[in-house]
Amino acid sequence: MTSNLSHLLAIEPLDPSLRDELQHKIETRTKPPGSLGRIETLARQLGMIQRTTSPTVARPVMIVFAGDHGIANEGVSPYPQAVTVQMVANFLAGGAAINAFSGVAGLTLEIVDAGVATPLPPSPSLVEVPIARGTRNFAHERAMTRDEAIAALEAGAARVRHHAVLGTNVIGFGEMGIANTSAAACLMSRLCGVSIDECVGRGTGLDDDGLAKKRNVLAAALAHHEDAREPLDVLATFGGFEIAMMAGAYLEAARSHMAILVDGFIATSALLVADALAPNVRDYCVFAHASNEAGHRRMLDHFGARELLALDLRLGEGTGAALAVPLLRAACAFLNEMASFESAGVADRGDGGA
Amino acid sequence: MTSNLSHLLAIEPLDPSLRDELQHKIETRTKPPGSLGRIETLARQLGMIQRTTSPTVARPVMIVFAGDHGIANEGVSPYPQAVTVQMVANFLAGGAAINAFSGVAGLTLEIVDAGVATPLPPSPSLVEVPIARGTRNFAHERAMTRDEAIAALEAGAARVRHHAVLGTNVIGFGEMGIANTSAAACLMSRLCGVSIDECVGRGTGLDDDGLAKKRNVLAAALAHHEDAREPLDVLATFGGFEIAMMAGAYLEAARSHMAILVDGFIATSALLVADALAPNVRDYCVFAHASNEAGHRRMLDHFGARELLALDLRLGEGTGAALAVPLLRAACAFLNEMASFESAGVADRGDGGA
Repeated sequence: MTSNLSHLLAIEPLDPSLRDELQHKIETRTKPPGSLGRIETLARQLGMIQRTTSPTVARPVMIVFAGDHGIANEGVSPYPQAVTVQMVANFLAGGAAINAFSGVAGLTLEIVDAGVATPLPPSPSLVEVPIARGTRNFAHERAMTRDEAIAALEAGAARVRHHAVLGTNVIGFGEMGIANTSAAACLMSRLCGVSIDECVGRGTGLDDDGLAKKRNVLAAALAHHEDAREPLDVLATFGGFEIAMMAGAYLEAARSHMAILVDGFIATSALLVADALAPNVRDYCVFAHASNEAGHRRMLDHFGARELLALDLRLGEGTGAALAVPLLRAACAFLNEMASFESAGVADRGDGGA
Repeated sequence: MTSNLSHLLAIEPLDPSLRDELQHKIETRTKPPGSLGRIETLARQLGMIQRTTSPTVARPVMIVFAGDHGIANEGVSPYPQAVTVQMVANFLAGGAAINAFSGVAGLTLEIVDAGVATPLPPSPSLVEVPIARGTRNFAHERAMTRDEAIAALEAGAARVRHHAVLGTNVIGFGEMGIANTSAAACLMSRLCGVSIDECVGRGTGLDDDGLAKKRNVLAAALAHHEDAREPLDVLATFGGFEIAMMAGAYLEAARSHMAILVDGFIATSALLVADALAPNVRDYCVFAHASNEAGHRRMLDHFGARELLALDLRLGEGTGAALAVPLLRAACAFLNEMASFESAGVADRGDGGA
């Protein structure tokens, strides 16, 4: 069945032939070797992704995928499910954190209805491609069928193709969906092979009792779906439509040689799915921040990744990814605007001095 | 003698009366409580500094102070002293990292000759207020007189007043000066009361032998100047003109109710001086990043500070401070642009859910 997806999975590994040329350019800029730290590694990664020694941030985009989750019926979130559609309306009205941060970062913001439970008021700013009006409750049955999962992956990829045609070369993904930390925790547990206790956090703000209940509900659900092991099955069983679309969007963005900004716990769970399907995707990823949601650090370790920002965020919506955009611009400016020791007439270090 | 400085030291503590109003505004924005982590605390700090619930980033400025150090004669840097003036020329020509990053951050960049050893070519972009053509070698004598230190503090303060008049409410400081990690390490050792071994790092890239030599030179210098204990004496004995001007600039920026972006090891050593003279200054400071230069983490601990960026920088020039500017913009946008639960018609959390 995965063969249906083969066109999405053909992601080129990064071409190593430019690595030395990029490194030479980095090392001849007027600064002590290595002194710009992770801005230097970011510059090299951007150059390799874009296959140039002069990378750019062109028409950066943030896509926020929204969807509802049947598991919300189990009382795993302190917020009612109606908040999903209310927050989508808030995105469309410009009043959410991701609106504010996208403005600061110069990001084009797109909101996608991937499968919100309640019909949304028509809006020219909303991309309406819902797979269904929310997933089923995976405490009892699979959240979606394999065909629905594939349709969601394809829909997410299609949104990225839309922006690729318009010239976007940097993209980030955010999400909204009450109860989606529960979906993400189950994806993480199954795909990373770690105990659900290491994957469950307080989400939007559970108290101790709520946290214990969430753990029990998810442990039971994982046991109930013991057979779901293959990545697409894991996605269909525990995932959400917003997570599945985001997984497809990651794959297509990598296929399109975009630099991908990875946000927090939910966004990284979608990357776990994409990475399980096509591991080359991770080469295109920049990990923006480490979420305060328990489990995200372990996900970052899974990718051998370190975050750029130390902000203790745990909101989602793509907020952490948006905040990292200026660092990509700085990495490009470093490569494109700085003088070399030779051109600036600056002495390079001596014989080691003392 | 410090009484000469009393006008610089009159820094108001932050007014706590706005704290509750700011916190209420923060908590009623459409997001789970606390989920924007340090963006929320940054927003509150900016509001208290600017005495408003709608803080802004207005005409942000980066001032880079450059000066030479007599201690360079002891071979404590792998780069020749001539690199200071060469790098200043590079700043003026637009080819350094701080030029690239100031452009990305929308910072007005000013370069100040605080006391470079070699006369600089005239340039309309250079503010020439040198105290002397480099400090004396503190291995043998005090780097500067107390009068020179005071003149430098005043000159730094004057540059900030210039920008205050033009409407600047966010400011960062950078530095250039071959061997200034040696000056900063001695300031740190004496002002924080820690062993020089904890303060000395590789600077621009010393090897093991160079590092050992630097440690020995600085330990001997600290022993030679055992009597220098009062903050202004410590500054005059071990400091540089760029560090002294920066210390004065910190004081004036706090007096002017500006938010101050603190860069790396040298910049934080100048803050140690300012803070020893007038501790209220630290309330106005935002600590941008943790430098890879050994000792900076300990300095941050001294201030009970956590960095915003995890970038492994160790360049100076104000580069880390410049990279943090977009986070201040995001904190302002969060307060000024986000809807409240009420205005957006979003349900706040229920009774704890589950």
